[in-house]
Amino acid sequence: MKYIIGVDSGGTSTKAAAYSLEGQLLKETQTGFGNLLNNAEEALANIRQSLLNLFEELGEDNCQMVVLGVAGVDSGDFREVIFENLAPIKPETVILNDAWMAHYALLDGEDGCLVISGTGSIVIGKFEGLEDRVGGYGNLLGDEGSGYDIAKELIKAVLNAFDKGETYSKLEKKLLKEGDFSTVFELVKFVYASGKDQVANLSMVVVEKASQGNEQAIQLLKEAGLKLANQVSMLIEKIGMHKSPKVAVTGSVLVKNDIVYETFMKEVKSKYPNGEFVRKNISNTRGGYSYYKRQVTQK
Amino acid sequence: MKYIIGVDSGGTSTKAAAYSLEGQLLKETQTGFGNLLNNAEEALANIRQSLLNLFEELGEDNCQMVVLGVAGVDSGDFREVIFENLAPIKPETVILNDAWMAHYALLDGEDGCLVISGTGSIVIGKFEGLEDRVGGYGNLLGDEGSGYDIAKELIKAVLNAFDKGETYSKLEKKLLKEGDFSTVFELVKFVYASGKDQVANLSMVVVEKASQGNEQAIQLLKEAGLKLANQVSMLIEKIGMHKSPKVAVTGSVLVKNDIVYETFMKEVKSKYPNGEFVRKNISNTRGGYSYYKRQVTQK
Repeated sequence: MKYIIGVDSGGTSTKAAAYSLEGQLLKETQTGFGNLLNNAEEALANIRQSLLNLFEELGEDNCQMVVLGVAGVDSGDFREVIFENLAPIKPETVILNDAWMAHYALLDGEDGCLVISGTGSIVIGKFEGLEDRVGGYGNLLGDEGSGYDIAKELIKAVLNAFDKGETYSKLEKKLLKEGDFSTVFELVKFVYASGKDQVANLSMVVVEKASQGNEQAIQLLKEAGLKLANQVSMLIEKIGMHKSPKVAVTGSVLVKNDIVYETFMKEVKSKYPNGEFVRKNISNTRGGYSYYKRQVTQK
Repeated sequence: MKYIIGVDSGGTSTKAAAYSLEGQLLKETQTGFGNLLNNAEEALANIRQSLLNLFEELGEDNCQMVVLGVAGVDSGDFREVIFENLAPIKPETVILNDAWMAHYALLDGEDGCLVISGTGSIVIGKFEGLEDRVGGYGNLLGDEGSGYDIAKELIKAVLNAFDKGETYSKLEKKLLKEGDFSTVFELVKFVYASGKDQVANLSMVVVEKASQGNEQAIQLLKEAGLKLANQVSMLIEKIGMHKSPKVAVTGSVLVKNDIVYETFMKEVKSKYPNGEFVRKNISNTRGGYSYYKRQVTQK
């Protein structure tokens, strides 16, 4: 049976899935991390292995196309390195930026915006042949409404309370306790000594407290939702999709947290009453199938 | 003749100066960088050499005290390392945080606040036995009104114009041209690939354009002044010095730029009409002498 492979190469694991030409999931496989920034050689070996796993069972000759979703592929020479490394693979191979892979997965190749908010955030979209993006400038310059941003806003509130000599709120105390920080200076040290995702993880304190009704925590999540709405509004205007925008969301902050998502959606709807929203749990590997289908349809 | 040595160990050079017990400058010397974070061994050799230079001319036995101003001495085990390394030096040796060294230099050991704004920013102060600080949490969490902050605000304005699909202002164009950035993505890449001082250096574009009357540039500098005023107000309230605060400033942003300083001073004065300001170009090494004098007076 002929099939398509979609690969989602992430920071912790590489997921690959084979889809029939009608879009039916045939087989999935998972190997180690596929982010080339971690360790290019190992990541490439993991990506290759995921393909070999599927070839072995379904036959390499039956595979019509391999679509890889890879983070950071637009910067650096990742594209070349991957192509070189996968040269022995017979099927046609296409590399997409991981964000566009998610866009294909959620919007099936249709026009629309995709708002991603996990550790960082970015908005991408296309409309009538125009592709563009907003944000995604990383933790130093942006990542509005991301997990990192939510954690940072809480940390700044702690520092502000300290600078003013005020007592900490319940949420602020919870953060210090949770992270085992006996002083604000230890908290600051942690931020500088840790990876972005470790800092973003501190936002879980906000999520937990918000679910218990803590007002400060709810407010922080609402602000994240408003920031993300602002980002997507910018993109909608930029690509001229304001009449009836289609907006998909992905990433843990928007998919798992209802306060962020509801605030986000309400705000976007207040500007674009005809807005249509897509929020579903779907594997990014499916973006590979959608990409293939779109190519075939357009031929 | 008996004398005191003050050492200002900075990121590019180490300056040491000998002062008579009456405060007269006797001799200065300069060696390589003295920031232990760059390279501890080399920094310590430079600091030691600066002392030996002065001992050679003025006699080690005549030296009553060595006062070192060292960056980041409160974090890590710098203090121990320095003491160990300087053990063969005979005179009593004292290590101060570089910010407090500057405080002694400008305020002569008296009560008051010191606002520092260079690459980063921090406010420290003491009043009636109480010492405290505000800010100084680095470029990820603060450094309000610093050179880095000014540069970041301009970069964010560029990114915002790009995200909105608007044309760049004159100032924004100047930044892109000055840094040889052909796209915003190159600018973003630069921020992530560069040291903090390299990013802070981009603020010189703002300073230059402001001096030519560019409104956006002037506004950015005024905002830096307001942020610094806000930081010092917090500290004044925190240490209870609000009746007639004494406020000294140092660092290139406040010392060299009149727009930042005037805005800062006006804002602080609007809150504390009895405020007294100190803005003078004085070597931090002089803080060593002031420290010594204060010790002697208190004995």
